[in-house]
Amino acid sequence: ETLMGKYGDNSKLIYELQDQGGELLALRYDLTVPFARYLAMNKITNIKRYHIAKVYRRDNPATTRGRYREFYQCDFDIAGQFDPMIPDAECLKIVHEILSELQLGDFLIKVNDRRILNGVFAICGVPESKFITTCSTVDKLDKMSWEDVRSEMLGEKGLSPEAANRIGEYVQLHGGLELIEQLLQDPKLSQNQLAKEGLGDMKLLFEYLTLFGITGKISFDLSLARGLDYYTGVIFEAVLVQQENNPEEEPVSVGSVAGGGRYDGLVGMFDPKGRRVPCVGVSIGIERIFSIMEQRVKASGEKVRTTETQVLVATPQKHLLGARLKLISELWEAGIKAEMLYKKDPKLLKQLQYCEDTGIPLVAIIGEQELTDRVVKLRDVTTREEVRI
Amino acid sequence: ETLMGKYGDNSKLIYELQDQGGELLALRYDLTVPFARYLAMNKITNIKRYHIAKVYRRDNPATTRGRYREFYQCDFDIAGQFDPMIPDAECLKIVHEILSELQLGDFLIKVNDRRILNGVFAICGVPESKFITTCSTVDKLDKMSWEDVRSEMLGEKGLSPEAANRIGEYVQLHGGLELIEQLLQDPKLSQNQLAKEGLGDMKLLFEYLTLFGITGKISFDLSLARGLDYYTGVIFEAVLVQQENNPEEEPVSVGSVAGGGRYDGLVGMFDPKGRRVPCVGVSIGIERIFSIMEQRVKASGEKVRTTETQVLVATPQKHLLGARLKLISELWEAGIKAEMLYKKDPKLLKQLQYCEDTGIPLVAIIGEQELTDRVVKLRDVTTREEVRI
Repeated sequence: ETLMGKYGDNSKLIYELQDQGGELLALRYDLTVPFARYLAMNKITNIKRYHIAKVYRRDNPATTRGRYREFYQCDFDIAGQFDPMIPDAECLKIVHEILSELQLGDFLIKVNDRRILNGVFAICGVPESKFITTCSTVDKLDKMSWEDVRSEMLGEKGLSPEAANRIGEYVQLHGGLELIEQLLQDPKLSQNQLAKEGLGDMKLLFEYLTLFGITGKISFDLSLARGLDYYTGVIFEAVLVQQENNPEEEPVSVGSVAGGGRYDGLVGMFDPKGRRVPCVGVSIGIERIFSIMEQRVKASGEKVRTTETQVLVATPQKHLLGARLKLISELWEAGIKAEMLYKKDPKLLKQLQYCEDTGIPLVAIIGEQELTDRVVKLRDVTTREEVRI
Repeated sequence: ETLMGKYGDNSKLIYELQDQGGELLALRYDLTVPFARYLAMNKITNIKRYHIAKVYRRDNPATTRGRYREFYQCDFDIAGQFDPMIPDAECLKIVHEILSELQLGDFLIKVNDRRILNGVFAICGVPESKFITTCSTVDKLDKMSWEDVRSEMLGEKGLSPEAANRIGEYVQLHGGLELIEQLLQDPKLSQNQLAKEGLGDMKLLFEYLTLFGITGKISFDLSLARGLDYYTGVIFEAVLVQQENNPEEEPVSVGSVAGGGRYDGLVGMFDPKGRRVPCVGVSIGIERIFSIMEQRVKASGEKVRTTETQVLVATPQKHLLGARLKLISELWEAGIKAEMLYKKDPKLLKQLQYCEDTGIPLVAIIGEQELTDRVVKLRDVTTREEVRI
């Protein structure tokens, strides 16, 4: 009550979420659907953009595990009608570049295509009405064993044991160009129009990734399904991996840090005339990545600076606040990141201590002598070297 | 319905605002109160930070006048117990710097102090219970004449005509150090403890601003009141001004672009033990500033680039997509902002046209000849000059 009052007469403008005055509103769940809506509403047929912003989930927060109800997402998308797989390859290139630069450890980017998955389901005898629900069961393969996924297919999803077994043979496949070629020769799969298109595009994608020089950490993986409904073509997910003790065994995923895919139908859903704008995009799990980087810094005992201040303006005697204000003005004017203590007559030791604590590398000292000589004494905080300039 | 479905099984996590499940939530109204709450909750007694983010008002949107219900604010605040007026002077320095650099036209920064205003109200015979409401009436002086403000004081606010008249004499005063000195000599005002403190600090502030060399555009103005309740000391507001035809007359305000002040009590309201953290801060009206800058660019007919791309990678013949992918990889690797068309075999003319349209200054061309010679032809889009490198 008292807090609302702090805004004076304006507190009636506070956007309370309880009473919406008949308006149907929701906080955004992700950045992809709002992006698609933005394109449709503004009739944009061609754009490439990144967006870092907050999204909201009505979930039980598990802050200890880094799960919040309000968190950041970081998306990159390319929208527009282009030649096949060129923007898709760029998305994968960006994920590869980010994960390489951040040095989060070894990683693997799994790639698949919804059309290939649907083709697999079709030739395994899954009725089309069950494609999406089968897809979300396959999606659990990164957390559940094939046996458990198979039981869910038989039980909850009502597939036949034969269908499930045949799916099992496919979704355990992973590899590179050879696997794509092999499936393109698969007598049944190659007869499925969608799967054939998907495999053709996958081949193209791997050719482009080879030219980018990044196929080493990319795997065509038929178990990748991705939870969301809106994907229509290529899908991908980047996971950090750890090599178990036995080097014979495959590396184990320790968590997803990026994911995305092609969604060619979403923009059309928001357009009154249903005009389609093909899109492909990727979401970088920045919250997860930051938490990994923070843990790493913490473990290393490294000191992290929280400001970029280059120099502290300091005075060694009393009655020199004016000199500090003048000098700091000149430094700011020159684009130099400068700070001073907000004290009239701070002790020099305190000012030097502040630099040690915050990691400011230089101190510009002006005392009475310096003022007379019209110089500044510049001191290196670490080496304690001083020059008069 | 269909859209919610796009998130698959996860659509139950969409944070709808209608049903809060018993939770009392509101969207933030500004960045100041959440900042104060953050300090209190995290026991931070000392911080300087800026924050650019969205805030929300349950208001009728008037998008034509640039009034939205969701918009950006840009705040800078200094929290902590420091020597008087040093952080306050830095806030004004920053406002001055921003408005000078952006070249939005002539501006004026009005400064006052809540303690001086309260002192004025006290010596004019306003009962203490009416200080805040009188303050919000004085705040209207930038949009209403003194006559109208006076009627509101007599009518709605119930002040006596004598009190209103005496307030009127004070709130029409504005000037610099001389005015401060004059009021410090005012027989009644100088007897009021709060006003005396406020005037003393105002004098200090003007001394610091003189050292910063920025007093030219700063005016001590007793009509400035600021709408919000939480200010406890110095308050300020920056307005863009226009000189009317008659140079004898004072310049006229054409709109506020920044405002702020000292709020020493807000953090304590959020602390269970009421521990106070003095704060001073400023909010820059970036939405307004952006709209002014956009109008200016539009009027000038100047073309604004929407990307920072430095070079387009282009090919003049067919079957060279591979060469483009390789070259663009190398450029990205080297930190150069490069683009290419997402087409397998684009016409050279189309690629050059794209540069003209988007303002990309350079084209890196690789044709069959260049590949054989192991060179790149770099073309300046404007001058059409070409060099082989």
